[in-house]
Amino acid sequence: MPSSGIRITDAYEQQRDEVRRSLPSLLAGNRRRAISKALGDLYAEDQAEILSELTPEQRETALRFLGERLLPEALTHFEPSLLLEVVSCLAKSRFASMLTSLQTDDLVELFELLPLDKRRKAMDLLVPRTRLLVKQGLGYSEDSAGRLMRREIASVPEHWSVGQVIDYFRARRSGFSDSVQTREAFYTIILVSSGFRPIGTVQVSRLLGATRTTLVSAITDQEMHLVDADMHTDKVANLFHKYGLVELPVVDVNGRLCGSITADDVVEVIEERNEEDIFNLAGVSSHDFYADIGRVLLSRVPWLSLNLITAFLASSVVAKFSTAIEQLVALAVLMPIVASMGGNAGTQTLAVTVRSLALQRITGRNVRRLVGKECLISVISGLFFATLTGVGALLWFDDAALAVVIVVAMSCNIILGGFVGVCMPISLQRLDQDPAVGSSILLTTCTDIFGFFSFLGLAAWILL
Amino acid sequence: MPSSGIRITDAYEQQRDEVRRSLPSLLAGNRRRAISKALGDLYAEDQAEILSELTPEQRETALRFLGERLLPEALTHFEPSLLLEVVSCLAKSRFASMLTSLQTDDLVELFELLPLDKRRKAMDLLVPRTRLLVKQGLGYSEDSAGRLMRREIASVPEHWSVGQVIDYFRARRSGFSDSVQTREAFYTIILVSSGFRPIGTVQVSRLLGATRTTLVSAITDQEMHLVDADMHTDKVANLFHKYGLVELPVVDVNGRLCGSITADDVVEVIEERNEEDIFNLAGVSSHDFYADIGRVLLSRVPWLSLNLITAFLASSVVAKFSTAIEQLVALAVLMPIVASMGGNAGTQTLAVTVRSLALQRITGRNVRRLVGKECLISVISGLFFATLTGVGALLWFDDAALAVVIVVAMSCNIILGGFVGVCMPISLQRLDQDPAVGSSILLTTCTDIFGFFSFLGLAAWILL
Repeated sequence: MPSSGIRITDAYEQQRDEVRRSLPSLLAGNRRRAISKALGDLYAEDQAEILSELTPEQRETALRFLGERLLPEALTHFEPSLLLEVVSCLAKSRFASMLTSLQTDDLVELFELLPLDKRRKAMDLLVPRTRLLVKQGLGYSEDSAGRLMRREIASVPEHWSVGQVIDYFRARRSGFSDSVQTREAFYTIILVSSGFRPIGTVQVSRLLGATRTTLVSAITDQEMHLVDADMHTDKVANLFHKYGLVELPVVDVNGRLCGSITADDVVEVIEERNEEDIFNLAGVSSHDFYADIGRVLLSRVPWLSLNLITAFLASSVVAKFSTAIEQLVALAVLMPIVASMGGNAGTQTLAVTVRSLALQRITGRNVRRLVGKECLISVISGLFFATLTGVGALLWFDDAALAVVIVVAMSCNIILGGFVGVCMPISLQRLDQDPAVGSSILLTTCTDIFGFFSFLGLAAWILL
Repeated sequence: MPSSGIRITDAYEQQRDEVRRSLPSLLAGNRRRAISKALGDLYAEDQAEILSELTPEQRETALRFLGERLLPEALTHFEPSLLLEVVSCLAKSRFASMLTSLQTDDLVELFELLPLDKRRKAMDLLVPRTRLLVKQGLGYSEDSAGRLMRREIASVPEHWSVGQVIDYFRARRSGFSDSVQTREAFYTIILVSSGFRPIGTVQVSRLLGATRTTLVSAITDQEMHLVDADMHTDKVANLFHKYGLVELPVVDVNGRLCGSITADDVVEVIEERNEEDIFNLAGVSSHDFYADIGRVLLSRVPWLSLNLITAFLASSVVAKFSTAIEQLVALAVLMPIVASMGGNAGTQTLAVTVRSLALQRITGRNVRRLVGKECLISVISGLFFATLTGVGALLWFDDAALAVVIVVAMSCNIILGGFVGVCMPISLQRLDQDPAVGSSILLTTCTDIFGFFSFLGLAAWILL
């Protein structure tokens, strides 16, 4: 465990980077004690990060030398591809003791990454009550509030006074070991009725300032949000973002309090969702920073394959107009401009729409307004850039008819790009599909095919 | 203010959507009381959201009818383009009273959006102490921890006992009005030395469970992070993400405690940074959901203009090979495939690199490994897709030499795309530039120009 007391972030990071730098040579020298001290003094997150950067052999040695000083929380910070390897390096008894000092939300996160057989074995290492809670947690669907919440809740009966609450927590605490105390931080106390239904929340800091005789029900927060355990975590994340929440109670299907989600878990959900959106728009299925090259290729090849197919499709459109190109080679020169501008304008609209959908800014009422606005923007920028391009083409090739053809084709293509960019993600979402997956390839397929077809088709019809 | 007590999120959202739906007709009927009740019962965030969706005339009427029931926090939830309009609808006395019930971090956020003259006037409405704190906050550079932190801190001398802390907060509280109590939530108490230097933190919930005689210094957290006021907010956000923080104390240049950042503010920073990355990769400078069409066009036209210029550049490469195309029109048919595959493979690498940079996963040590890995991936997928394309071209045009040309050109172009995709954002970052801004256009410029040049050039050299 890190030496207690204050850790100025800059100084700590220097220490960590020094460990990162010196570790390979310490490992080469088999310096057991130095390694145990160096890695053992770091936070769990950095232990996991630095161990992840090693080769499998180095990692195995480092884990052996580190021994008991590998923090339990470190387990939850390995990328899925490494977790199993790390777990199999641990002695069973050590793994068991690490599991007992994790909170239920961390345990659920950890167990969902383990393959089924390993999961069953690890489950046997838990005490029955925790095992039940973890099993219940895993019973909720992936990406639901139920998976994200922790089961350790600070709840008290609604009729208690501040003094009773304080006495209750003092008595409860004395039964716990020190390590549990530290991690069992909560920010809100939830008032429950006799049926364990939440009826209000009190900020712990507010409780601290109230007199002992005050009824907790008299100092409840004026805002209280409450969600069902089956709410999607994206929606949970948007609630935290929108309302600036720090803790959010969760109820089961019967309306009974069953858990609580804190802001630190939500930060992770938000980063994951954003990563997904960025990667989906760029045609990467998933990304695991420490994955080997085979896995990385697997996450990218499908989209490149799809792109290859659509590129051949677009080329087949060009092939239809071979004769026109032979007669007027300027068509081959200018056609990439038409396709590219349509694709780029559409990508802008697509990114804005995907983002608005992710933040649930698009409601039934303003969807028509958004579509209208984006289409109008496409029309204006389509006409503007098409005219500019037309002037360019005229100066370059001194062919007025060709300039007219490119103006018409490009403005139509930019307008199409904008239309597809806004409508496709909205439609995908309505069909319960992820609006970001595949949409950028579909979009450029549309603008490439239509761009080539409209430009070459018009040219063949008008010019030749 | 919302009617107090519990608000099940689903039920509340139905109520809010009903308000959103019915508001235009209530406004048309000038139903002052119904509007005041409907909007007044909503949370600040939804008041701002629904008001934002109205036309300026409707908004002015709604604000007038809403009067005192517009929550002070709502001011911090308007997009910049609307804030000034809303403020100018408010009576000066009302605006002043709203300002006094905001916390310093909200005030700083609000003031930075006001134009300078309006800012000066609004500053005069604050009490001197708050004015000083807000001015100090605005004195920190944009996107720094100092701008983000709030100045209201819960700090106590290191030698106090739990009982003394509780008594202190009880005594302090009695001097505050109810509304201040509610918002002044804190999650951590910071122990300071006589020089106001932070020397440890205690979770409020932990304090609650300790006996009165316990020294607070005996129950400090084992992890404590502490940052300088001039740290960039992106770095702050990464600390919250990595270490699962809920509150982070901030010190000034002299090491004295000067503020504190909470997870709810960080969620906003993270969403903004991610939005920027998504938009930058798609070539959108900034996005304001409620901005008028003129502003939206301004945020997109620069990138489209740059794209037009680069598209003409790429076309000029094609033009150089007009003779080759006239002789073998299959070149015009196949050249978009070469360019497109290079661009897409590069975009995948680019997205992964930009994301890794944003999360500060790339350290000095692993940058070479990352570049090597991405280049290797490009080589493998380049050879694979180029061969596939070669086979396709052979089947289509029955020309072995043409197939060889496309295999060579495309594999080189995909490798180039991967290389540029990983090296360009890293170089931009080293030059202190945003690695996402402009990089996708620069990338496709490279792959378009090189794709056309290598394919047509090789073809002209070998085939003709």
